[in-house]
Amino acid sequence: MANLKLTVAYDGTRFSGFQRQPGRQTVQGVLEEVLGELAGREVQVFGAGRTDAGVHARAQVVHLDWPGPVPWQRLPQVLLRRLPDDVAVLDAVPAAEDFHARYSAVGKCYRYTVDRSPVPDVFRRRYAYHEPRPLAVDAMRAAAEQLEGTHDFTSFCAAATPVSNKVRTVYAVRLAEEGSLLHVYVIGDGFLYQMVRIMVGTLLEVGLGRRSPSAVGEILAARDRRRAGVTAPAKGLTLWEVYYSRDELEDALRRLS
Amino acid sequence: MANLKLTVAYDGTRFSGFQRQPGRQTVQGVLEEVLGELAGREVQVFGAGRTDAGVHARAQVVHLDWPGPVPWQRLPQVLLRRLPDDVAVLDAVPAAEDFHARYSAVGKCYRYTVDRSPVPDVFRRRYAYHEPRPLAVDAMRAAAEQLEGTHDFTSFCAAATPVSNKVRTVYAVRLAEEGSLLHVYVIGDGFLYQMVRIMVGTLLEVGLGRRSPSAVGEILAARDRRRAGVTAPAKGLTLWEVYYSRDELEDALRRLS
Repeated sequence: MANLKLTVAYDGTRFSGFQRQPGRQTVQGVLEEVLGELAGREVQVFGAGRTDAGVHARAQVVHLDWPGPVPWQRLPQVLLRRLPDDVAVLDAVPAAEDFHARYSAVGKCYRYTVDRSPVPDVFRRRYAYHEPRPLAVDAMRAAAEQLEGTHDFTSFCAAATPVSNKVRTVYAVRLAEEGSLLHVYVIGDGFLYQMVRIMVGTLLEVGLGRRSPSAVGEILAARDRRRAGVTAPAKGLTLWEVYYSRDELEDALRRLS
Repeated sequence: MANLKLTVAYDGTRFSGFQRQPGRQTVQGVLEEVLGELAGREVQVFGAGRTDAGVHARAQVVHLDWPGPVPWQRLPQVLLRRLPDDVAVLDAVPAAEDFHARYSAVGKCYRYTVDRSPVPDVFRRRYAYHEPRPLAVDAMRAAAEQLEGTHDFTSFCAAATPVSNKVRTVYAVRLAEEGSLLHVYVIGDGFLYQMVRIMVGTLLEVGLGRRSPSAVGEILAARDRRRAGVTAPAKGLTLWEVYYSRDELEDALRRLS
């Protein structure tokens, strides 16, 4: 048995999220099924982030105890022929015995993409949320800055979440324009349920002029989900990267600024 | 009645090509159906290029005689709510009475995209052909150069095509790398059936070292489809732009060089 770290990309469109659920198509379910067939025994995979239904991943990380017989070096190529075409294992490397995809992570990056063109781009339609109305991007940047830091993010967490400690550190919220696309990159030490989508929904309301950028401080202070904006649709969200050392995290922050 | 010029984008994945065919899903069929419902009478659309099954368009051009009652200015927005999400009308403008999407065109650009990453990019899988083996891009460029100019392209035309004059002018064949993607842009005054895909299939064989770049001249001279390479898969091909004046065409050539 060897502890392996896999990097996984998926188009989340047809999945009921990452996490295994009986009777539903999930990414974890597909990976465990295909790896289990290869191994001839049950295999459990553990993901860094439990992405929701419809959310994508560019570089999700999972770990698993791999019993063979396929050598880990060959897993990406062997899986390429067995996985459906919307899931791909990009990389497989041995990891320390105590490596855990979720608990060893020191940070994660999500990217949310808004398509601002008058008519949605047919090639991005599965991966971007269409908002053709004019957006005040500078106001959104000012609001984004107030989300950075260590805060109680209760207002930016789906109301029904049974997590007691809702304090998280958001290292960076950066808006980047690419043609008619607006990307929102969010790097943090951890994320509450639907936190990025509620942050983006709130930033969009600032961009549309419905809230002032300074409202973000009040929303945070209220610790009340009803004070923040709507939850932006899942399809615009992609789990971008997962970091396992301060160096990786700091490097990502440098690239973003 | 007004002669309108529409710019249309589509994801060709699920379509049996552009051209109307009884009992099949085609782009022309979908456009004529939706426009006909809006107009309350039969509407015929004429496209600049009859893209094959699985081929996409970023900016196909069609013309039609529009009887109303919806004013042409509102067509893109009204069609947005009625067309399936893989077809979009980006623009509608009045055109001269004798404007014809196909016969008025002085040139067209196609783009073919090859995904060179070891494992295919799940987000590009519908729009790129996966070729993970090493490609000698410089050799491909040398071969591409020989395709430029006015030639009899019989060797680069699907064998069964009933067109007598197979002389076409190719203004430019340019290879552009974008991360692990390799794009091949081809601008010409007109294209024979599957011409770009056979050109790309031949360039890939040069890139893989199976043919020398200088073989292209001999292939052209042979006027024999069997001498060229295989037809590259449809999904990598996109009708990129259509030009209706020398200025538009020359501007595109400048942007490409």
